[in-house]
Amino acid sequence: MLSVIRDLTVKDVRFPTSVEQLGSDAMHTDPDYSAAYVVLETDCNLRGFGLTFTLGKGTEIVVCAVKALAGLVVGKCLREIVSDFRGFYRLLSSDSQMRWLGPEKGVIHLATAAVLNAVWDLWARAEGKPLWKLLVDMDPKQIVSCIDFRYITDALTEEEALEILVKAQEGKQQREHQMLMEGYPAYTTSCAWIGYSDQLLQQLCTDALRSGWTKFKVKVGADLEDDVRRCRLIRETIGPNNTMMIDANQRWDVAEAIEWVSRLAEFKPLWIEEPTSPDDILGHATISKALAPYGIGVATGEQCHNRVMFKQFLQAAALQFVQIDACRLGSVNENLAVLLMAHKFKVPVCPHAGGVGLCELMQHLILFDYICVSVSLSNRMCEFVDHLHEHFTSPVVIQNACYMPPKDPGYSCEMFESSVRRHQFPDGDVWRLDMKK
Amino acid sequence: MLSVIRDLTVKDVRFPTSVEQLGSDAMHTDPDYSAAYVVLETDCNLRGFGLTFTLGKGTEIVVCAVKALAGLVVGKCLREIVSDFRGFYRLLSSDSQMRWLGPEKGVIHLATAAVLNAVWDLWARAEGKPLWKLLVDMDPKQIVSCIDFRYITDALTEEEALEILVKAQEGKQQREHQMLMEGYPAYTTSCAWIGYSDQLLQQLCTDALRSGWTKFKVKVGADLEDDVRRCRLIRETIGPNNTMMIDANQRWDVAEAIEWVSRLAEFKPLWIEEPTSPDDILGHATISKALAPYGIGVATGEQCHNRVMFKQFLQAAALQFVQIDACRLGSVNENLAVLLMAHKFKVPVCPHAGGVGLCELMQHLILFDYICVSVSLSNRMCEFVDHLHEHFTSPVVIQNACYMPPKDPGYSCEMFESSVRRHQFPDGDVWRLDMKK
Repeated sequence: MLSVIRDLTVKDVRFPTSVEQLGSDAMHTDPDYSAAYVVLETDCNLRGFGLTFTLGKGTEIVVCAVKALAGLVVGKCLREIVSDFRGFYRLLSSDSQMRWLGPEKGVIHLATAAVLNAVWDLWARAEGKPLWKLLVDMDPKQIVSCIDFRYITDALTEEEALEILVKAQEGKQQREHQMLMEGYPAYTTSCAWIGYSDQLLQQLCTDALRSGWTKFKVKVGADLEDDVRRCRLIRETIGPNNTMMIDANQRWDVAEAIEWVSRLAEFKPLWIEEPTSPDDILGHATISKALAPYGIGVATGEQCHNRVMFKQFLQAAALQFVQIDACRLGSVNENLAVLLMAHKFKVPVCPHAGGVGLCELMQHLILFDYICVSVSLSNRMCEFVDHLHEHFTSPVVIQNACYMPPKDPGYSCEMFESSVRRHQFPDGDVWRLDMKK
Repeated sequence: MLSVIRDLTVKDVRFPTSVEQLGSDAMHTDPDYSAAYVVLETDCNLRGFGLTFTLGKGTEIVVCAVKALAGLVVGKCLREIVSDFRGFYRLLSSDSQMRWLGPEKGVIHLATAAVLNAVWDLWARAEGKPLWKLLVDMDPKQIVSCIDFRYITDALTEEEALEILVKAQEGKQQREHQMLMEGYPAYTTSCAWIGYSDQLLQQLCTDALRSGWTKFKVKVGADLEDDVRRCRLIRETIGPNNTMMIDANQRWDVAEAIEWVSRLAEFKPLWIEEPTSPDDILGHATISKALAPYGIGVATGEQCHNRVMFKQFLQAAALQFVQIDACRLGSVNENLAVLLMAHKFKVPVCPHAGGVGLCELMQHLILFDYICVSVSLSNRMCEFVDHLHEHFTSPVVIQNACYMPPKDPGYSCEMFESSVRRHQFPDGDVWRLDMKK
């Protein structure tokens, strides 16, 4: 805990996922899942690993932003940081000159997440615990001291947050035990990317059912007739009792979203995800209201850029499922704020994961949510996408379609050095030897 | 018009304004006004100049983002771009991999503005007209063809936009003539930065009154008793009939904003600017409602990051003054969308300017607004800050506290090469020879 952060390095790591249309959707037709990957070096042989997820081109911009933030981190002692984590969060997110570049949004906020994810990883390793367990064992007062309440006190005060956490202390051990035995329920997005053929969809769904999956997300929004065909095919394959969600990745305007989704209502999706611009709180509220009669909720959040936006989505009843993201928001600190607000507004959190490293990170936060905040699994599940886990030293473990709590100390986003080296852009073997570059 | 863009260069140019507390406010205590400065080279001896404004640290991140966008611009023919400007805007703002970094917000959107500002400058130069005149002479259909209506059709359709522009054709020549004779009304922010002493405030206000200024903006939000004293001093100095506005630069939470501004109501400010987070639409709506009985409006926009946010501010009656920004929004294209929405919602536009180059850019947009959209000067004025104009080849001309329409072809943001060279960070003389670096 007395370790001083001596150095911060950041690398541009890209995986050529677009070759197989992995991750393809209506707006992101050819993503190369990538990360700005941060390593903190200390003076006591301890290292911290963090990342922020990107889609390929432009990762170098986030790398540049991480370098700009490095000066605020290097030289600091871990104990000094975590004893006033709220202040440290504010230092990074509200630098007098750099806040113009956000504030708390876009590239600079993604970079803040990468840096703070590494600090949280370092802290958990220093304590010898997986991050979720570090959080679960923390005193409610200490949890609250990590949160910057600026701009959200009209929705959630520090006192209210503390009250929620204190109340949830009851039954905590039992829920922790339950998670260790059963894991946290997940759904899969791996079966129905928009670039996949009907045959492949059907095959993947059938395989997934055999492996115990019961909840499936389908990418929609490129072509209505395609969507009708694909949704019908998947509903027929998974049967009436399993769960289907649909995801448009921001493809529509408000009226178009309502019309399009109404056409897909017969396939009984639980939610429509990202029907329109991620910034359009009032638009999401209109869509929520229009789709309520069909029993279809609205889910959004992977591009909801900070706690102020989530606050308004909740205030306006603009979503029925909160999809936090481990890298879009300002790391654990800001995610804690959103978990607590969602609880206050009685909206379930169903996190965004996938990409590269997002599953590894997110499992920690959602375990904490169940054990210490929401105390409920009703209408809750965490996204799972089955790729790129092989690059991590402590990859996620899925059993019976559930995330099993990680046991290794840290935040689970350390990559193998060989993976980093091979995929570094533009000089790693994967890119140097490939025409994609 | 047939010129092909052969090269794009971008420079990190910083002015050490923090030394004299120029530009200081409650949240940005030591800004070094800076820019990512773009030059487009063509194959026909024509060049285009554009910039985006920043506050110092982190400008290199925007420079990096501009370089990432350059590949979408270089090689294109100007005619090809402007004949489908909506498509070109979409190309830059919605690249399948890079949109993850925004979309349309933060660093990547600031960079988009810098690039597109240079394209608009190039277009105006190719036509031999100042940008405002290029816009004023354009057919309404052509104006509309520059706007991306994605995500705003629930507030303004293409047809409605066209109707507004067609209707405003009447009396256009007369208004253009009026502007050429009288100029567009301005207010000054140069007298009351937060770092200024009382004596300096009083002196600057007295001087400004003598030069014909009648509208003054005061920075508030650091300390309530200081604010009371400063507002009283300024109101006494400028008298009861001149106009005072106050600006908190996002300092407060919602309840605090209402309480603090109520305490300053006796000094009769026309508006409170940026009372809270620029993302908090619903918070601004609450503040607007609470301050209406005092006759104080809410103004915001310099950090309102795109048309989707402005749409909601208008839908929610969350602001009474729309402050567009030439670099925060995606250049002229996105500003046109906001001008037209503001007109539809009957809210006056009072643009943000100042910084470096913002006055030079903004005068063009607000002249177009008066001549071709709003056709009104009621409750309207454009910000003016009196510094750094000497670095531009066609600086703004202020007469009787009005912006006189620029006459040189282009968008007025070409800097002298010597200024760029001297202020380039970190190698220009100003930084190399200075300890600030």
